[in-house]
Amino acid sequence: MNIQTKKAKFRQPLYLESGRLLEPWEIVYETYGKLNSKKDNVILITHALSGSHHAAGRYSPQDKKAGWWDDFIGPQKAVDTDKFFVISTNVIGSCFGSTSPLHPIHPGTNQRYGLKFPVITIEDMVKAQKILLDSIGISHLRAIIGGSMGGMQALRFAVEYPGFADDIIPMATTYQTRAGVIAINKIMKDAIIADPEFKNGEYDIDKIKQNGLRGLEIARMLGFLGYLSPTTFDKKFGRDYLKTDGMFELFGRFQVESYLEYNGANFPKWFDPLSYIYILKAISLFDISRGYVSLSDALSQIKDNLHLISFKGDTLFYPEEMKKIKEEMDKLNKFCAYYEIDSNYGHDSFLVEVHKFEDIVRKILRS
Amino acid sequence: MNIQTKKAKFRQPLYLESGRLLEPWEIVYETYGKLNSKKDNVILITHALSGSHHAAGRYSPQDKKAGWWDDFIGPQKAVDTDKFFVISTNVIGSCFGSTSPLHPIHPGTNQRYGLKFPVITIEDMVKAQKILLDSIGISHLRAIIGGSMGGMQALRFAVEYPGFADDIIPMATTYQTRAGVIAINKIMKDAIIADPEFKNGEYDIDKIKQNGLRGLEIARMLGFLGYLSPTTFDKKFGRDYLKTDGMFELFGRFQVESYLEYNGANFPKWFDPLSYIYILKAISLFDISRGYVSLSDALSQIKDNLHLISFKGDTLFYPEEMKKIKEEMDKLNKFCAYYEIDSNYGHDSFLVEVHKFEDIVRKILRS
Repeated sequence: MNIQTKKAKFRQPLYLESGRLLEPWEIVYETYGKLNSKKDNVILITHALSGSHHAAGRYSPQDKKAGWWDDFIGPQKAVDTDKFFVISTNVIGSCFGSTSPLHPIHPGTNQRYGLKFPVITIEDMVKAQKILLDSIGISHLRAIIGGSMGGMQALRFAVEYPGFADDIIPMATTYQTRAGVIAINKIMKDAIIADPEFKNGEYDIDKIKQNGLRGLEIARMLGFLGYLSPTTFDKKFGRDYLKTDGMFELFGRFQVESYLEYNGANFPKWFDPLSYIYILKAISLFDISRGYVSLSDALSQIKDNLHLISFKGDTLFYPEEMKKIKEEMDKLNKFCAYYEIDSNYGHDSFLVEVHKFEDIVRKILRS
Repeated sequence: MNIQTKKAKFRQPLYLESGRLLEPWEIVYETYGKLNSKKDNVILITHALSGSHHAAGRYSPQDKKAGWWDDFIGPQKAVDTDKFFVISTNVIGSCFGSTSPLHPIHPGTNQRYGLKFPVITIEDMVKAQKILLDSIGISHLRAIIGGSMGGMQALRFAVEYPGFADDIIPMATTYQTRAGVIAINKIMKDAIIADPEFKNGEYDIDKIKQNGLRGLEIARMLGFLGYLSPTTFDKKFGRDYLKTDGMFELFGRFQVESYLEYNGANFPKWFDPLSYIYILKAISLFDISRGYVSLSDALSQIKDNLHLISFKGDTLFYPEEMKKIKEEMDKLNKFCAYYEIDSNYGHDSFLVEVHKFEDIVRKILRS
């Protein structure tokens, strides 16, 4: 598969929902497949909290890890790169190359934004994507597909740019972030800033990549409480205890603890604490009806076909939340399909159980 | 109401499940009401993670805060201290006076156990309570009542000392701690030990009470994710934002964040980080069938009447877990009643919605 990774740079300011602006700003994106002559085969992929533009494929045969949605995107896969031209962007604020708190506050200097970076919202992410698409001559999308925070972007895109896409496929997401999730985000953020090595955002990036950052590791472990359902935890780990550890040692570990440790310890190697805090804020602030009179008013803007895919056992964004969108869309007499997938993983199913919903997506993209 | 707070000291060792022992050891307890001449009106109350022996009443009319189960225990209340002699102990390991990591490792010295304190299990807590009861001449209990970790103790008591009590009333608890809860406990523990002020358990107690301990505050906030149900979070906080904070300030706060901060910040003033870690470990290790061939084998020991009270929306110990006990007891043809309370709070309902189950308890204690 042909992977192209590019960076688009913009001199004109990006006006943010907060009233602040980014100027200049840049966005990293990746494409798979070929744009057809009619330019009507474009699919936009939107990523979740710790995702990136690298959604599919391997950069070389030696590359150990494929893109995060590689089961889903590729030749002959549900998002078929033999047919579609797929664009996947890194959201602004994220640490994989788009403008983020790690960028210089003044172009050409070394001083990074750090905590002076403006708060970014889902709307801002979407606006940046739209400007990128305009700049590369894409005036219409076949579909927008994303899970979790990616689903928020897909929904927001549908509301802000009605008719720009044919089909919107948000998964494992919500119309507004609930208090319980805001609470998790808050604790993750606090764990990071409590770490003395975070130094108010003035940390040494290389040092953290090398030595880790306990606060970010704790945040990552905490994230897993939402990504996996309680039932998944049972099935995956049960009460198995590490054979190397004593049952009555204070720091003896159950398997689940070892799993969390492993994932926690790796995280600072590939994800940045400042970006994490800013993206958490964007998720907490997400409310599709902000700027509209009501949820119904926001949804009434939509002209695209909406296909909602939720997962049973998702305890981060409950199926009921997506069902609520379906109900409102029905009241508005707008096209909306709702699928509730019988998942084994809960929230993370959109990443790890592609086989459970790929046929639904194939069918949507075929029609 | 007559509150008596006492400390019992034991010179003979307390043999722990780990094989280690505490010698000497002591246990703090409180009593309400009067022991009758037949000594057959005794009820044992067992507390949860952050609870104490102070379950009911006020020490003086000026005392601002009553005991943690004051709605439930007192004259004419469900656990009627006009009729019953109520004993409530502080579990060993806890920081309210019973032997804990804060106690001297060698009697008469100043060096505290710290991380050298042995791991404590629910069985150990129960054994200590039984020795206490023996020592004060109580050879039979009318009932044992407790919620969450208190419910674990009640269940363990029933298995270890069959026939010692007439009625066992565990609430909001389980027969074994599931992987998802072990995961929460692990992250809480890690947050505490990651705090440089924790100093491997060698912290200055007074300093922490005064200045707080961020790691323990984060742990406490994290605890709330399990204590309240997602629906409670919605009802209690919704997406309300603090009026003093800017929506697009990075550290601007939703109401739910402010609530967590308040509860987190207070916690180190009244609870100790070492005790917290040890009690978390006891909860993670809890499995009523440890030492038995199976859950059924463990439950087959029970000779007391078992009354299980679970709460809908409890996402820490799900109603299904208590139902499983009921099913096993039914198969064994043993008396077991199961109640599922329609709660507004989830796990914390056993503390804050006493009116929803007090009639059930009254009825049990009347018969």
